Amino acid sequence: MTGYTAPTRDMRFVINELGLLPAIQKLPGCEDTNEELVDAVLEEAGKLAGGVLAPTNASGDAQGAVLENGVVRTAEGFSDAYRQFVDGGWNSVPFDPDYGGQGLPWLVGIATEEMWIAANNAWSLCPMLTMGAIDALTHHGTDAQKDTYLEKLISGEWTGTMNLTEPHAGSDVGALRTRAVPEGDHYRIKGQKIFITWGEHDMADNIVHLVLARTPDAPPGSKGISLFIVPKFLVNEDGSLGQRNDLRCVSLEHKLGIKASPTCVMSYGDDEGAIGYLVGEENKGLACMFTMMNNARINVGLSGLAIAERAYQQAVDYARERTQGAGPDGKPMAIIHYPDVRRMLLTMKSQIEAMRALVYDTVTSLDQSRRAEDADARQAAQARVDLLTPVVKAWCTDLGVEIASIAIQVHGGVGYMEETGAVQHLRDSRIAPIYEGTNGIQAQDLVARKVLRDSGAAARTYIEEVRALCDTLGAADGDTAAALAPQLAAGCDALAETTDWLLAEGKADMARVLAGATPYLRLFATVAGGAMMARATLAAQASLDTGAGDPDFYTAKLASARFYAENILPQAVGLVAPVRDGHRAVLEFNEAAF
Amino acid sequence: MTGYTAPTRDMRFVINELGLLPAIQKLPGCEDTNEELVDAVLEEAGKLAGGVLAPTNASGDAQGAVLENGVVRTAEGFSDAYRQFVDGGWNSVPFDPDYGGQGLPWLVGIATEEMWIAANNAWSLCPMLTMGAIDALTHHGTDAQKDTYLEKLISGEWTGTMNLTEPHAGSDVGALRTRAVPEGDHYRIKGQKIFITWGEHDMADNIVHLVLARTPDAPPGSKGISLFIVPKFLVNEDGSLGQRNDLRCVSLEHKLGIKASPTCVMSYGDDEGAIGYLVGEENKGLACMFTMMNNARINVGLSGLAIAERAYQQAVDYARERTQGAGPDGKPMAIIHYPDVRRMLLTMKSQIEAMRALVYDTVTSLDQSRRAEDADARQAAQARVDLLTPVVKAWCTDLGVEIASIAIQVHGGVGYMEETGAVQHLRDSRIAPIYEGTNGIQAQDLVARKVLRDSGAAARTYIEEVRALCDTLGAADGDTAAALAPQLAAGCDALAETTDWLLAEGKADMARVLAGATPYLRLFATVAGGAMMARATLAAQASLDTGAGDPDFYTAKLASARFYAENILPQAVGLVAPVRDGHRAVLEFNEAAF
Repeated sequence: MTGYTAPTRDMRFVINELGLLPAIQKLPGCEDTNEELVDAVLEEAGKLAGGVLAPTNASGDAQGAVLENGVVRTAEGFSDAYRQFVDGGWNSVPFDPDYGGQGLPWLVGIATEEMWIAANNAWSLCPMLTMGAIDALTHHGTDAQKDTYLEKLISGEWTGTMNLTEPHAGSDVGALRTRAVPEGDHYRIKGQKIFITWGEHDMADNIVHLVLARTPDAPPGSKGISLFIVPKFLVNEDGSLGQRNDLRCVSLEHKLGIKASPTCVMSYGDDEGAIGYLVGEENKGLACMFTMMNNARINVGLSGLAIAERAYQQAVDYARERTQGAGPDGKPMAIIHYPDVRRMLLTMKSQIEAMRALVYDTVTSLDQSRRAEDADARQAAQARVDLLTPVVKAWCTDLGVEIASIAIQVHGGVGYMEETGAVQHLRDSRIAPIYEGTNGIQAQDLVARKVLRDSGAAARTYIEEVRALCDTLGAADGDTAAALAPQLAAGCDALAETTDWLLAEGKADMARVLAGATPYLRLFATVAGGAMMARATLAAQASLDTGAGDPDFYTAKLASARFYAENILPQAVGLVAPVRDGHRAVLEFNEAAF
Repeated sequence: MTGYTAPTRDMRFVINELGLLPAIQKLPGCEDTNEELVDAVLEEAGKLAGGVLAPTNASGDAQGAVLENGVVRTAEGFSDAYRQFVDGGWNSVPFDPDYGGQGLPWLVGIATEEMWIAANNAWSLCPMLTMGAIDALTHHGTDAQKDTYLEKLISGEWTGTMNLTEPHAGSDVGALRTRAVPEGDHYRIKGQKIFITWGEHDMADNIVHLVLARTPDAPPGSKGISLFIVPKFLVNEDGSLGQRNDLRCVSLEHKLGIKASPTCVMSYGDDEGAIGYLVGEENKGLACMFTMMNNARINVGLSGLAIAERAYQQAVDYARERTQGAGPDGKPMAIIHYPDVRRMLLTMKSQIEAMRALVYDTVTSLDQSRRAEDADARQAAQARVDLLTPVVKAWCTDLGVEIASIAIQVHGGVGYMEETGAVQHLRDSRIAPIYEGTNGIQAQDLVARKVLRDSGAAARTYIEEVRALCDTLGAADGDTAAALAPQLAAGCDALAETTDWLLAEGKADMARVLAGATPYLRLFATVAGGAMMARATLAAQASLDTGAGDPDFYTAKLASARFYAENILPQAVGLVAPVRDGHRAVLEFNEAAF
């Protein structure tokens, strides 16, 4: 069993050296977010993650969350860790200072979040869900609602949840049936929700449920959904906790992984009806939900990266310690020397680096979309975030599973044993391609909403960005640039070709386009990861050329980029045919013959 | 939770219509193995698999195997199922009639085995291990040993195990330390073995352990290993069971999956030393082990296919039942209609078909290698089996995991819940890329032993076989042939190019070659699967042209082949760079920077 050491040097490379922090510093209110501040935050967060959270990961998995008489008992150490997390102010990093937040950019927040997830994925879902609630209330709540809930949610004294899914309403959230009947200044909520992450627990005094429901005269489908605040305990005028609301956790799911995260079936209004407060307008709940969800999608993508990093660290430790066979000196040889083991480790490492750079870069655009002075700049940044969000969510979560699986493979036979801890990462990672919109939904979102809806404007802007990087790379010195430039150019051509095909075909036949959505997303992501590796190559080569910093670090960055260029990027070209030609068999296949 | 229906029609298509059975019927002793016989065997086996074994799969997973006072209690229904299996003669299908076997070709045996694994993977490992023991004794045992053990093993009255691994000796089996000291006509064995599948259980009267150990004056490493029969109960001269041998199961592993299969830590000779009998010559144990292992590798590859089939059936059932959103008629629409779900199902189905055809075809060569009258034909067939064995093992087990994971994805959120049963397939499948030689070892075996050792002779023969198929396909009628021919030709070129590279580079630098072994194996397998899809296309098109049989069935076979051509085969070209160029970053990477 391996602990977790926050990869602060790698994080700082992405934040400080790939142009992200410099871009952030130009934003109003972020002038003081400098390298020293980032370093200090990462170091302190790393201590909490490695020292407090990580040791509860395996034991939390073994103990799970337990429901007894309507109360969920969390695993040993979880409450204490949460207390330290709240006391340290970690819940409030990126939020509004008017409500007690620290007002730091999301770029800084995402790095700390990566650590919480990697240290203890099940635990980290609690603050992650709270973030979604904060986001929704910040954007859609009334001033009174903000005054009542935001400070406590931002501090972490209270936690938040998202209540969307019902047994018949999963990907099709518009099919939900939970009812909300107006009664004076509030509503009475009745219905059952499933898959409610941290819907009930013992780590905080109150839980603020955000619940999607239908008012009596709501139109059918997704246009008739409203969002409600339904607190576990009602809040008195003075902010103290009042009566217990009519809601309860009726059961916990028995899951493959994230066992320490209580996944609740929640029942609202078994008696008189739970009291809820409308957020935003009636029937506009879907927009509020997407506010919660879009950020949550980036966070879930981040979780793929974070678990991959944790699994990678464990695999490296094992590969250094475990010997098999003899080396040239006749002595037992650590398996890290074997070419195939090194290939596995580099497959993990290079993609982790590409993912981290892509996620942090996307979040930088998110900061720009919210803070840039110029409205056009905000809009351009928002378009980039919108485009990259499904890419980040689906690619990083798919890779999270793949990389967790490779980590098991590095261990050989002992990797399959629960004691080793490697399989927990695979079990934990497997939910991420499913929740917050399955990866199939992400691919559909990418193609239909993000590429086609604006007639390819955002996609083409992005492709031009990658094309410019290819040019810069082609003109740069060094073996890695020379190896990466043609592969990235080929990937970029493949992305451009398939994007053009989607745009042309989307006018005639959406089914064809959707049949190729998943390979298109993978192609897009593989190229986007390659673009970030290009930026890493240029930065590392520049530091080597000027002799700044540790040459071993930058040389390793080049090797990792080269591995990506020669082993990962070539997949992109192989995905053109699935996008462009794959639809025939998909659509024509006789359903009875499945 | 879905049961299991043996895919007998698909099996018969491969066996009867892709030229496999016709090839078998030419072999001495197989003249009577006709379609009627195959049909009858498949139908009866399907009943046992679907009706008796499959219902114990989920309950066995939940209960697991339990060790109490040295005795392993298997899950409910396991013993009874085993009794029915033995009584039905299913254990004896492919074995020597002189010892009670039915003498049927392995081609028939493999189809029944696929059913046992798909129905209950954990349970099926017991007879699978017995097969390895039978193989080893058949090839290396004395007549007296055969007389004592073979009949009971072939009937299934006794079961067998393979005892290779020790804590320090996994992939490097030569590092094992278990000792065997001669004493009269037998040896005394002392040592501990780990990961012993079905090392102790309550389903049979005796367990025949085949144990690798070292004699006192054995040379170090793999050249000093001998193989011993170490029965749980010694066998009296009259064949009755005698005294309990000095061996015991000291603990069971707590694993990710195959929980109903007892994975034992076995201790030999805690007291006076376990009595063992030498198989073959001293220090030649490795050769005996490979006899056990080579067949076992094909069987483990088969398990990847079998679990994939089971997971696929469950995913299809769910996709037909589950509705989300509305169809053009405004009614709830089954998710099987969504293009992305269809893509997932076809990704599963097309690769399952390719795997099945490849495994069965490899086993046909195995039958030829053992039964062909002409020595040259036997040798050619053996070379083909040797070449394809690591491909079958690694590719099918990797795909088994990938396909089990897709099956979860088809389910969405409920797929992550243990009750649904989809995650069991992922958990069960994950061991197969590890045991019987990790897939990294398979790739190394393919490159170093199977491609380089004979200077590419077997590989080039195989490539010519694929090339000829491309030509036939290119000249054939039909859309599918037209779509598949160029993709298969491109894949074949990629295989030829990388094979030539390996042969050239292998003379200079084995590390480079081994660094690309894993992508080379994947490339090889992807093309080999494509070649089988080409044979399926030709057969299906011929049946459609002549109007023989059910046109829907053959049309679906064409669509599946087309999907493979346009979605799976294009990956092959993307694997050339990883083989040819990937080694630089792999070998040059600074180990300290991992």
